[in-house]
Amino acid sequence: MQGDNGTAQKKKRMSCGLEIDCPKCIKIALQDASNDGFHFVVTYAIHPQFARDVTGSKVPYLISRTDRLLSSTDWSRLIVGKINDDALDVDSDIPHVAFKSKALLSQELGFAVHLGLPATMIKLPQAKNPIGAHQIWINLPMVHPSRYSSICDEEENMWERWNHFRTYCCYDRRIGLALDLPNIQHLPSQLEIDRWVGEPQFVLSKPHQDIIRKFMNLDVQYIIRGPHPKGGDYKKYTSYINFLGKKLFESNATTEYIQGCEDYLQSPLQPLTENLESMIYEVFEKDQVKYIEYQRAIQTALHDLPQTGEMPVVIVVGAGRGPLVQAALNASYLLHRPIKLYALEKNPYAINTLQDRIINEWHERVTLVRGDMRYIEITEKADILVSELLGSFGDNELSPECLDGAQRFLKPNGISIPTSYTSFLAPLQSTKIYNEILNNRPHDKSIQNIYETPYIVHLVNYYQISPSQEVYTFTHPNWNKEIDNDRFGQLEFVASQSCLLTGFIGYFETVLYKNVMLSINPQTYSEGMVSWFPIIFSLMEPVYVKEGEKIKMSFWRMHAEDKVWYQWCLDSPIQTGMINPNGRSFFIKTH
Amino acid sequence: MQGDNGTAQKKKRMSCGLEIDCPKCIKIALQDASNDGFHFVVTYAIHPQFARDVTGSKVPYLISRTDRLLSSTDWSRLIVGKINDDALDVDSDIPHVAFKSKALLSQELGFAVHLGLPATMIKLPQAKNPIGAHQIWINLPMVHPSRYSSICDEEENMWERWNHFRTYCCYDRRIGLALDLPNIQHLPSQLEIDRWVGEPQFVLSKPHQDIIRKFMNLDVQYIIRGPHPKGGDYKKYTSYINFLGKKLFESNATTEYIQGCEDYLQSPLQPLTENLESMIYEVFEKDQVKYIEYQRAIQTALHDLPQTGEMPVVIVVGAGRGPLVQAALNASYLLHRPIKLYALEKNPYAINTLQDRIINEWHERVTLVRGDMRYIEITEKADILVSELLGSFGDNELSPECLDGAQRFLKPNGISIPTSYTSFLAPLQSTKIYNEILNNRPHDKSIQNIYETPYIVHLVNYYQISPSQEVYTFTHPNWNKEIDNDRFGQLEFVASQSCLLTGFIGYFETVLYKNVMLSINPQTYSEGMVSWFPIIFSLMEPVYVKEGEKIKMSFWRMHAEDKVWYQWCLDSPIQTGMINPNGRSFFIKTH
Repeated sequence: MQGDNGTAQKKKRMSCGLEIDCPKCIKIALQDASNDGFHFVVTYAIHPQFARDVTGSKVPYLISRTDRLLSSTDWSRLIVGKINDDALDVDSDIPHVAFKSKALLSQELGFAVHLGLPATMIKLPQAKNPIGAHQIWINLPMVHPSRYSSICDEEENMWERWNHFRTYCCYDRRIGLALDLPNIQHLPSQLEIDRWVGEPQFVLSKPHQDIIRKFMNLDVQYIIRGPHPKGGDYKKYTSYINFLGKKLFESNATTEYIQGCEDYLQSPLQPLTENLESMIYEVFEKDQVKYIEYQRAIQTALHDLPQTGEMPVVIVVGAGRGPLVQAALNASYLLHRPIKLYALEKNPYAINTLQDRIINEWHERVTLVRGDMRYIEITEKADILVSELLGSFGDNELSPECLDGAQRFLKPNGISIPTSYTSFLAPLQSTKIYNEILNNRPHDKSIQNIYETPYIVHLVNYYQISPSQEVYTFTHPNWNKEIDNDRFGQLEFVASQSCLLTGFIGYFETVLYKNVMLSINPQTYSEGMVSWFPIIFSLMEPVYVKEGEKIKMSFWRMHAEDKVWYQWCLDSPIQTGMINPNGRSFFIKTH
Repeated sequence: MQGDNGTAQKKKRMSCGLEIDCPKCIKIALQDASNDGFHFVVTYAIHPQFARDVTGSKVPYLISRTDRLLSSTDWSRLIVGKINDDALDVDSDIPHVAFKSKALLSQELGFAVHLGLPATMIKLPQAKNPIGAHQIWINLPMVHPSRYSSICDEEENMWERWNHFRTYCCYDRRIGLALDLPNIQHLPSQLEIDRWVGEPQFVLSKPHQDIIRKFMNLDVQYIIRGPHPKGGDYKKYTSYINFLGKKLFESNATTEYIQGCEDYLQSPLQPLTENLESMIYEVFEKDQVKYIEYQRAIQTALHDLPQTGEMPVVIVVGAGRGPLVQAALNASYLLHRPIKLYALEKNPYAINTLQDRIINEWHERVTLVRGDMRYIEITEKADILVSELLGSFGDNELSPECLDGAQRFLKPNGISIPTSYTSFLAPLQSTKIYNEILNNRPHDKSIQNIYETPYIVHLVNYYQISPSQEVYTFTHPNWNKEIDNDRFGQLEFVASQSCLLTGFIGYFETVLYKNVMLSINPQTYSEGMVSWFPIIFSLMEPVYVKEGEKIKMSFWRMHAEDKVWYQWCLDSPIQTGMINPNGRSFFIKTH
């Protein structure tokens, strides 16, 4: 389960810029564009009309328009620079061409930095000259003309070239993508589009976003113009924007809770050793889907119990502030079948809430027991033991260990809800997440430590390379004499196209009871459920995988006296060292 | 000179809370307080009516009101907790009293954390039990009753007790102050008040501030109630709030530029080796006071020049985007005395702006020279050499080295504007700044490195222990055969009351020409000037200084082939090691 997303909430907005090569007056062009509903203008940082001099010794010393044409606030919010690509060839084999091009490029980028532009757009160079400073948008076509043009012999793969370049630049997060969309008749496959979605698209700076927010409040229309469509066909632009708009609407339809968490790293909770706070309980309790399914499971199980003279005993372990207690009461009420209900909890502050509800809402129909489910005693045995101890990977909040301890309260033929849960893994491409981990490194943690730590993430800017696969399962109750909760799984995925493997995504499915399930695994996702985001197990360094190659990996769940941990490694296409061996960087405390 | 303050700008707001001990219903109390214009409520986290049980085994398990009375958002934004101090004595000599008190305190703080309260207010404990987690407001009277009551024999100094406690807690920034104001007749001295101002007062959390901003937009009145004034005399409260309001108004009257920079650390600029950006020029150019004084100085100097047949030559070195060029043109116009004006600049992007102004504004009346003033050649010699190369400490942006180089352009009897500048230092108490340095440590820098680096800061939460003193002076032109720009100063201050020395504040004064001065030294401050904030030289660790004790320190300006640096140390009341020896952590590049 993930915690709260704090004050990070923000609304998703569409942002639309207009590319103008050589406006006569930048102030008027900006005004016009803004009147037309655009949020920013993309234009040459250095106006091509200026006779350019790289040495800087030619008089007059003009290299471009004066910076005093706009306030620095406007330069830094409303203008995205554009490099005079056509006049440059930094990768030329002719030395003096390459030399002069590099000097011009450096001047253009320097002037962009001087103006304080939020970013500069440039065509994808060959990987001879890495670009360091400044925010750069690499402009390239999603599909190279060589694919559909009969003139070119060999097809040039744009993703491969991009991947080569950004690897060369060490996945620098200041390098983003500005993709040209192909004509309708040349659209790439869905698979290729998905891979592009996994690439870091350019993101607007904070002040930029603020401007956009303002425009949104005015309810402006999205009007697209140029860049100089050859055939005068605007349709492909407008239809793409409509497509984006629809996507935006869908994303707005999900609950507010998820918004603002996109690609935001959270540490997994350790509820066994740390008390949850009021706000986290409140967030969990808002998940309708989850508790409706729990109620269905309890109701079905209750219905299945043979009618003896005695009232069925239901024990909720880890009752929190009482949502499962309420679900059990509801199920009992709907079946007209009275139950004896116990609520077990260890957090004294949640107990305070439970006690209040028992007195004021539940009219003493619930018995409160205080303590750790692994050690406390209850005189009565349960017909149904209900718990919600599952994390994003199923077992990662130690549900197995807790329920093994709690099943002492269960009658020999008693039912555990959940009955079982299964963990899943899928290969991931996301340099965004790879960079996020690095950029959020705490002072006291090493690079090794942060990549060996799993994170809970609402993934957005990513590409799942292959469908998820099952790793292992836990079933409850487990009446084996010796209970072994260690697990091992070895999985083999196939890359259906070339990609960059940065780690693995973890999901879980659980059978609450019989056919009542919860799942965050994409293939079986419980529609509308928001309590869990996936968990990420990273690699130390991204690995390039060719189309058709196998991605083989090994995954362990292990334990020591006072902790449980995961460790993993990649076996193919290359063999990596063990990641998080002995839980050296991350483990879950059991005491 | 300081750079831009980015998007950190925010408005100053007054925040006013109401203390209510035991409201019947917290929701209604909150509503009432909000209607009365209060921004938050201070109340017991654990309501005293609950029979409290530390062991947690007594049934029913109620320890306080249920957390479901308010949403977690309201708890975390509108309620500041208050400890039942009167019922506690964690420092008691009776073991079972101390034991139970500690358990109760831990329960109260635990519940505050559970609720997500932004802070908890507690009376100053003896320094036996440091308080770690959570945001704590230490509540204590500004003046202890022992000072004015005849019952007490010995006066208890509240600042000393507070200082002892927070030193014990390692200056933890989560520990703030909530000061009770004394009656009008018992007000402390101005000196004591100044020292309290140097202490970290409680600061509201971000969401809290947002709420306040909302209230401010409604233009609410500030109404003060209780806490239970004994004599029913509200006047001292309202008059204090009026005093605060007046202070607020004054602070609003300063330019917008300064707002939002309070106690914000900036690195000194290195304009000699790095080009300034457009935004920084724009900020500087807005300082009216500075350029009016420069214009006055140029006009006076021009007036003093003997009337020969030739036009006086004025050279502006480091012309930037031209504010001093404009000042020189103005001075010439006002005196009806034509001049020959040169503008020297090395930044190619600022030159672009200058060139544009020469063509379109100044009608070719200015000659532009491109290059580094230390190396470039100009055929003509100047009567007046104008520059603005001063940093917050005067020489810290290498004005001495630059002007020594540029005086080649000056006639033997020519005038340099500025003519001289002097650096000043004063002892500083500010644990706020001490903590800010630590909290802003970049990943790749050591603790030693960050405390050996000077910072430019708009000081607000600080106490200047003693008036500033002169350290050294530079004068231009300097026709000595050998120019030595190294300096050494040893200063001796006296602490007029006990205090905590955390570092030194640096200021400068400059004589532009004759009686035309600029100063950021408090004793001679140029009213309304905003271009410079003070510079801070920190100690590695705060040092307690007793009333009347001497603060002795040594300060060096030194150089090597390619750099200039400062190093300093404290000689008394304790001797510290040398700070920043050989410029190991901070230096100014000369090449």
